Amino acid sequence: MNLEKIKEPEFIKQLNIDELNDLAKDIRQFLIENVSKTGGHFSSNLGIVELTMALHYVFQSPIDKFLFDVGHQSYVHKILTGRAQDFCTLRQFGGMSGFQKRKESIHDQWEAGHSSTAISAGIGMAIARDLNHDNGEIICIVGDGAIMSGESFEALNYLGSIQSKVIVILNDNDMSISRNVGGLSNFLSDMRISTQYNNAKNNYVTFLNKSKFGKKVYKITKNMKDHIKKNVLDDNIFSQFGLDYIGPVNGHDFRELINAFSLAHDMKHSVVVHVHTTKGKGYELAENDKSGLYHGVPPFDYKKGIKQSHKDCTWSDIISSHIEERMGVDEDIVVITPAMISGSSLNQIFEHYPHRSFDVGITEEHAMTFAAGLSCAHKKPYITIYSSFIQRAYDQINHDIARMNLPCLIGIDRSGLVGSDGETHHGVFDISFLSAIPHLIIMTPKDALEAKKMINTAFIHFNAPYILRFPKGNVENQECSLDETIEIGTWEKVIFQPFHSLTVITYDQKVDQVFHLIQEYHLPVNLINARFIKPLDKDMLNELYTTHQHIIVYETDILTGSLGSQIAHYYSRLHMNMSIDYLGIDDHYTPQGNIEKLLEIEMVSLDHLLNLIKEKLDEKRES
Amino acid sequence: MNLEKIKEPEFIKQLNIDELNDLAKDIRQFLIENVSKTGGHFSSNLGIVELTMALHYVFQSPIDKFLFDVGHQSYVHKILTGRAQDFCTLRQFGGMSGFQKRKESIHDQWEAGHSSTAISAGIGMAIARDLNHDNGEIICIVGDGAIMSGESFEALNYLGSIQSKVIVILNDNDMSISRNVGGLSNFLSDMRISTQYNNAKNNYVTFLNKSKFGKKVYKITKNMKDHIKKNVLDDNIFSQFGLDYIGPVNGHDFRELINAFSLAHDMKHSVVVHVHTTKGKGYELAENDKSGLYHGVPPFDYKKGIKQSHKDCTWSDIISSHIEERMGVDEDIVVITPAMISGSSLNQIFEHYPHRSFDVGITEEHAMTFAAGLSCAHKKPYITIYSSFIQRAYDQINHDIARMNLPCLIGIDRSGLVGSDGETHHGVFDISFLSAIPHLIIMTPKDALEAKKMINTAFIHFNAPYILRFPKGNVENQECSLDETIEIGTWEKVIFQPFHSLTVITYDQKVDQVFHLIQEYHLPVNLINARFIKPLDKDMLNELYTTHQHIIVYETDILTGSLGSQIAHYYSRLHMNMSIDYLGIDDHYTPQGNIEKLLEIEMVSLDHLLNLIKEKLDEKRES
Repeated sequence: MNLEKIKEPEFIKQLNIDELNDLAKDIRQFLIENVSKTGGHFSSNLGIVELTMALHYVFQSPIDKFLFDVGHQSYVHKILTGRAQDFCTLRQFGGMSGFQKRKESIHDQWEAGHSSTAISAGIGMAIARDLNHDNGEIICIVGDGAIMSGESFEALNYLGSIQSKVIVILNDNDMSISRNVGGLSNFLSDMRISTQYNNAKNNYVTFLNKSKFGKKVYKITKNMKDHIKKNVLDDNIFSQFGLDYIGPVNGHDFRELINAFSLAHDMKHSVVVHVHTTKGKGYELAENDKSGLYHGVPPFDYKKGIKQSHKDCTWSDIISSHIEERMGVDEDIVVITPAMISGSSLNQIFEHYPHRSFDVGITEEHAMTFAAGLSCAHKKPYITIYSSFIQRAYDQINHDIARMNLPCLIGIDRSGLVGSDGETHHGVFDISFLSAIPHLIIMTPKDALEAKKMINTAFIHFNAPYILRFPKGNVENQECSLDETIEIGTWEKVIFQPFHSLTVITYDQKVDQVFHLIQEYHLPVNLINARFIKPLDKDMLNELYTTHQHIIVYETDILTGSLGSQIAHYYSRLHMNMSIDYLGIDDHYTPQGNIEKLLEIEMVSLDHLLNLIKEKLDEKRES
Repeated sequence: MNLEKIKEPEFIKQLNIDELNDLAKDIRQFLIENVSKTGGHFSSNLGIVELTMALHYVFQSPIDKFLFDVGHQSYVHKILTGRAQDFCTLRQFGGMSGFQKRKESIHDQWEAGHSSTAISAGIGMAIARDLNHDNGEIICIVGDGAIMSGESFEALNYLGSIQSKVIVILNDNDMSISRNVGGLSNFLSDMRISTQYNNAKNNYVTFLNKSKFGKKVYKITKNMKDHIKKNVLDDNIFSQFGLDYIGPVNGHDFRELINAFSLAHDMKHSVVVHVHTTKGKGYELAENDKSGLYHGVPPFDYKKGIKQSHKDCTWSDIISSHIEERMGVDEDIVVITPAMISGSSLNQIFEHYPHRSFDVGITEEHAMTFAAGLSCAHKKPYITIYSSFIQRAYDQINHDIARMNLPCLIGIDRSGLVGSDGETHHGVFDISFLSAIPHLIIMTPKDALEAKKMINTAFIHFNAPYILRFPKGNVENQECSLDETIEIGTWEKVIFQPFHSLTVITYDQKVDQVFHLIQEYHLPVNLINARFIKPLDKDMLNELYTTHQHIIVYETDILTGSLGSQIAHYYSRLHMNMSIDYLGIDDHYTPQGNIEKLLEIEMVSLDHLLNLIKEKLDEKRES
């Protein structure tokens, strides 16, 4: 069918099983054709087609509320709620979000981007419903990776203790972004293969085949439920939390899905419905993808699949490969990732040093304190987390690592604007919340060589918690031996002529960009590489004062608490009257869009810098 | 015995049961006499006497490492490791910490203050041990409240999936700071009363009574273990995480404790030993205390017990009572606390509005997203968390609440220096990490009246996430009707004469303190109450510029990212050359001590302010 004609999800309730299967096929084809054009989250949405359709079949959105945890797997939900025509703008500036978005549709009642918030939020909505004596089910759709994160555990444990009902759909595709870990993961895989499961499932399916199809089924499935319950319900982690459990259910079989959801609908208590889905279902390359290549995809030709360019080298690649080199000569170095082996380019390290590499799942808090424990025991941990996700570990960085001044290296990947993931993912806050934490050394390399020197510096001194902050995207590789270091807290004069009266201070890859800008326009301007956000290079700042420089601090992070604000404070404390201009992101959330577009709307592009430089040079000339 | 003669814990291994019981008595008496003198954590330490002694009996510190989660229950450990003579300085400036402290003793190998870090850290140490092919057990002692926090769950789940062995001692006193919640709590209470437990326990105890006492017992207890395992081990939450389980054990019976710990010592895999203890054991008032009065105590006469003064009124009291008043006229207001009913003075609210009051346990993350869910569903949540603990919810405040601009009121209790709890508890960072988050409105009332007006403002407008930041300690009550509000983002001219050229900007209770200082010394100084940290009062700042004021920003929070730094940045961005001095806490962790002492060593006391004012006035006169 023409999916763009769908306005509301009601129509789906009229379809029979064959029609549902036909629609699923159409939706898959639509997803493959469209997401491969725009880029976006691919495998997770292909895996959840039948599950989402069955939810809309059994429940009635928006009276019943669907909360997609993380939300990157809500594309099918978007199609069924009248947004198919917007897929051409997916994740683009001004276009449709890659996550649930409340302003997009009345059917999106929660929004996220970070994992493991849906159950907590759902509990809030369920309690509000019950306080108001309202109706409607709350349905949280949570992946097998996200359910093992601390906040989900907190919520599950709490849910088991209250009367308000929430339905948790555990979308178990045995493959979150990285491998799952932990006891709960073992339980899930046991459930997939256990005889009990097979017996229960066979009974279940057989029973349903004999029954009349449709909503009435759930009334008679009660016996079946009791049967399953005897077999598997009592002895699992969810029942320990005080929750009912249904499953596992084949996530690509409408009969099973609809009946399980109907059963959940009919129950009085909170229940976990364990649905087994295949990530990438219907697109062979994605189904067989073990590396996460098809998790989030760039635009690609779906008839050929994604071609990986081995020439491109990301910041993550460069940094991980240098860490690996150091691991070869220093057996105390250990590596920790919260479920980002592939995203953080750690595959080789995990392969070559399996005993010194730890994927802890989506557990940023545990990851950081685990690292603290290793550091206490004189290991040398390298923990790498995306900037936006490290927000989850603020307390652990402050209270556990920095307070005890435990040596380690924390890689903050995807710092700065990240593009089409939007508000939830931009790594623009970390400077603001990390700079005030004592003992931290915060480094922002301008290029691969400097990044490697900084890694060397951290591991050779190894006397404090070091932060290495690097952006998304590519960088040119440069050779660097293992003993090259940088003096801590020293900035670099990239261009410095005392007779220039205007100095741009910037950091990370912007240093080279500004350098080329200055060269291209023959600007009489100094350029400082503020490669340490903390500690500031006070000597350099003092020199800028004594040489009467006008300063422009050029940042693409949030302005409050930025390097610029720290420089302002530094001079002000010393009563040094400096004329400073600041570029940075104002006090709001930056939307999605490609980075060039975002730099433009935030007025922090190189063009904006150029205009500001020209303006300041003109002022100087006039004065 | 004279406890001050203990140098190392080895001696305890030579004692027989009667001698152990005698020592336990001595330790209890010592704790009662000493902690009642200095103040400190009382009930939790009385409850853990036998448990700690049995740990030192079975294990060998520091080869075996004890990690006390939170650490406020480590006093017995301190006595047994040669620190009895330091109890006269407990929690005082320069004295012994109320928590484990690595610099105090080789027997303190971890330190905390916040809950739920021990298992993660222990896993790090265990993995380091195994990588190094070292020996030694890792023993994490975790309370029943702390084990239900997200980070503990993450760690337990991870622990179940790895080979490295950690022993988790679950110190279950059925009474963490507030009531426990959740499925796991139900499990624990079931275990305490179940027939299985009683049977298992009876068998266990019977068996041990017949056996030879001592270390050898554990070899034969294997059969017993199998017996218990059949009864209770397979069907509990820990076994679901892949962990072995022993218990419940009577935490005041040395035979049971020593045998259970010996068994745990002998096992190859990670194991949870569930020990049931009585908080306050041996001091009747504390044993019967349901309100948490004896959790952390001020100095008191132990022969009479703590006398609660009903005249004193804390900031928490004032704020909670006004919230309660509003709840009476607005049925949409709901209250959330992470295990701090008593600390946050919420007892009455929970009593009067049980259906609108939610204690979620020590789950700051869940608490905040739960509030977001309630807000999405048009409830009006008031969430109150201590400043230091809200660090755990940074991501939820940013990603869940502020990003969606969900209306709510977040009370930040115990902001600023808190005194004798020390480094881990000072609430001096929240301004630095919250100010950069868009949409937040951050309010710092100077007195009870202003606090009440701010609460009114938040609930009447209810258009954004409001933060109400208030300190520890007492405040004079003032009447305020429910319709009095304050214009958002406006500061107050407490004293303002244009012919004064010096202006002090400060906030919270410091406003009145400075006012009295100015009065007392007849200082020709203006005083501004910066009652909104965010948004800044730009009109006021501009006026200070146009009236050529010299400014002193007086803060007792960390300087980086402070109000002062934001003021510096504000003026600098506008190229307004202002002469500003700053008082605030420099870039380090503030130790424990009484607040007056801490203000002095941080050079942010009123005396320091007075000196700075005089110095500036002198400068003015000279110029």
